[in-house]
Amino acid sequence: MARIAIIGLGLIGGSLGLALKATPREDLAIWGYDEDGRARERARLIGAVDRAVESPRAAVADAGLVVVATPAARIADVFEAIAPALAPDAVVTDVASTKGRILEWAAQHLPQHVSFVGGHPLAGKTEAGVEHAEAGLFQGRPYAVVPSEGAGETAIRSVVGLIHAVGAQERFMTADEHDHFVAAVSHLPLAASTALFTLLRRSQSWADFGKIAGPAYHDLTRLASGDPDLAADIASMNREEIQYWLDRYILELKRFRDLLDGPNEEILAEFANAQSDRARFLAGEDLEDQPRRGAVPDSRPSMAAMLLGPKIYARLRGVTKRAAPGARAARERP
Amino acid sequence: MARIAIIGLGLIGGSLGLALKATPREDLAIWGYDEDGRARERARLIGAVDRAVESPRAAVADAGLVVVATPAARIADVFEAIAPALAPDAVVTDVASTKGRILEWAAQHLPQHVSFVGGHPLAGKTEAGVEHAEAGLFQGRPYAVVPSEGAGETAIRSVVGLIHAVGAQERFMTADEHDHFVAAVSHLPLAASTALFTLLRRSQSWADFGKIAGPAYHDLTRLASGDPDLAADIASMNREEIQYWLDRYILELKRFRDLLDGPNEEILAEFANAQSDRARFLAGEDLEDQPRRGAVPDSRPSMAAMLLGPKIYARLRGVTKRAAPGARAARERP
Repeated sequence: MARIAIIGLGLIGGSLGLALKATPREDLAIWGYDEDGRARERARLIGAVDRAVESPRAAVADAGLVVVATPAARIADVFEAIAPALAPDAVVTDVASTKGRILEWAAQHLPQHVSFVGGHPLAGKTEAGVEHAEAGLFQGRPYAVVPSEGAGETAIRSVVGLIHAVGAQERFMTADEHDHFVAAVSHLPLAASTALFTLLRRSQSWADFGKIAGPAYHDLTRLASGDPDLAADIASMNREEIQYWLDRYILELKRFRDLLDGPNEEILAEFANAQSDRARFLAGEDLEDQPRRGAVPDSRPSMAAMLLGPKIYARLRGVTKRAAPGARAARERP
Repeated sequence: MARIAIIGLGLIGGSLGLALKATPREDLAIWGYDEDGRARERARLIGAVDRAVESPRAAVADAGLVVVATPAARIADVFEAIAPALAPDAVVTDVASTKGRILEWAAQHLPQHVSFVGGHPLAGKTEAGVEHAEAGLFQGRPYAVVPSEGAGETAIRSVVGLIHAVGAQERFMTADEHDHFVAAVSHLPLAASTALFTLLRRSQSWADFGKIAGPAYHDLTRLASGDPDLAADIASMNREEIQYWLDRYILELKRFRDLLDGPNEEILAEFANAQSDRARFLAGEDLEDQPRRGAVPDSRPSMAAMLLGPKIYARLRGVTKRAAPGARAARERP
């Protein structure tokens, strides 16, 4: 009987359990641990785990695959705690939204006889906790895979198997790429949303603002309602990348501000380009394009520094490209 | 038979017509005009107007209430066109998202024998055009009312009657207040959303960003998909207020950026405060509060300069406050 251990039974850990149990295999058992006894009990009751155990070590003993789904800042401690109990050739993965630090911790704390393959499902919702877990959370979503230097093909296949089992789509990348990309599409929006909420909330006219605020302000500040622990972990663990993107965003806002002093036609062109580009984005149509005329270079090279060595890396990227449904759709459209 | 004229049959004009017809009064007739013949025909077919006519003048002749629902930048031309045909004592209102310029245009172009009462429903959606009109668009939404200097009580009551008939809630304010408030809660989010989309779209790594972008990026860039004409009108007509708020937002983002260099506890406190404050906001709980400790002053005084004279203005504000459900709920909660 194959055993999977899930350490940390919150929204993501619980949803992974539910998604795995939704495609039942008789030979698969899921054991889970959370330091919160109520979360453990709840996870067992909703069927996210077959067995809830009393310690991380008990969960990982004899497990072939260990998923660490605790808050990111706690992962070093979890690695340290489970290290002595990990089975030989066990595969360890995580679900944190940063990868650089996690890979360092894995190298530091996990024994040589296990393989670490970092993971990050690009999925979630505003609510935290196992009570909001759902089996469909990962369906059709991208799932970043960041293998450690020593991870072999079997270990990588094991994590990709997990990703497919929960309905997600693997995307291979290096830790640097991951942290740079995710800072742009996820952490920058979090910061922008929180700052927009806080700015008006702390204004003297807040009572007036709040009373006339409509869908625009509601939607744009939604991320300010996310789990503060998760947000703070992200902010401190991926600080430099977030600051890099905040600087870029500030420059973009200044450009936008100055544009308003210019001719009306340029203002209209700015909004019209954004609208049509976003329509193409939503239709999956422009993701293979070269950058547009006037594109600002990223100023840091796409870090193709290969943790896996160039050959494996290139092969893995190739697999992802062939498998990507968005890419196929783009080519097939007229 | 009372007659209402709607000039401009787009999302807002069409929805106003549908909402009015949804509470049918036998003695009310709605005549509409749009320069686009298809929009006219469509508005008539879906029942947003009783009659679609061929010119703005034909629509307003004998109308007691005229609603100008064209793009904001066109309103001066509409005023000029309808001026000679307006009935004595007719009331003219609009639905534009800026008010200062519109009131100037009304003073300039409308005859002395009519009253202008500016209006702005804080409602809408991403899609434009009468084909997206719906009767429930204004239900429970705030609706700003900005009477011109000469507008009497009967004219104001007429516009408030329209607002109640479509299910909205009137909020009296001056044009300066309106343009300042709306820049904060609506135009700043529009600019922030568009800039966030454009920043990543023009980056060299766009193809990678687009493939892993999840709900955070999607939601935060939603407003970039709005009607570019409307957005450009807003940006040029309320330019100074938007620039003021963009400057404040840039400062807030810089503060946020620097906060990330500080201790983890302060980062956590920032997110935790935002989360709990937004929960209170969503529950309607904090809108009567004094500004928080550390509140940044708005740097421009709340413009209580009264277009109506201080007495009427104070009375109207009093009415709005008593009627505001959010305010009541806040006081009734423990």
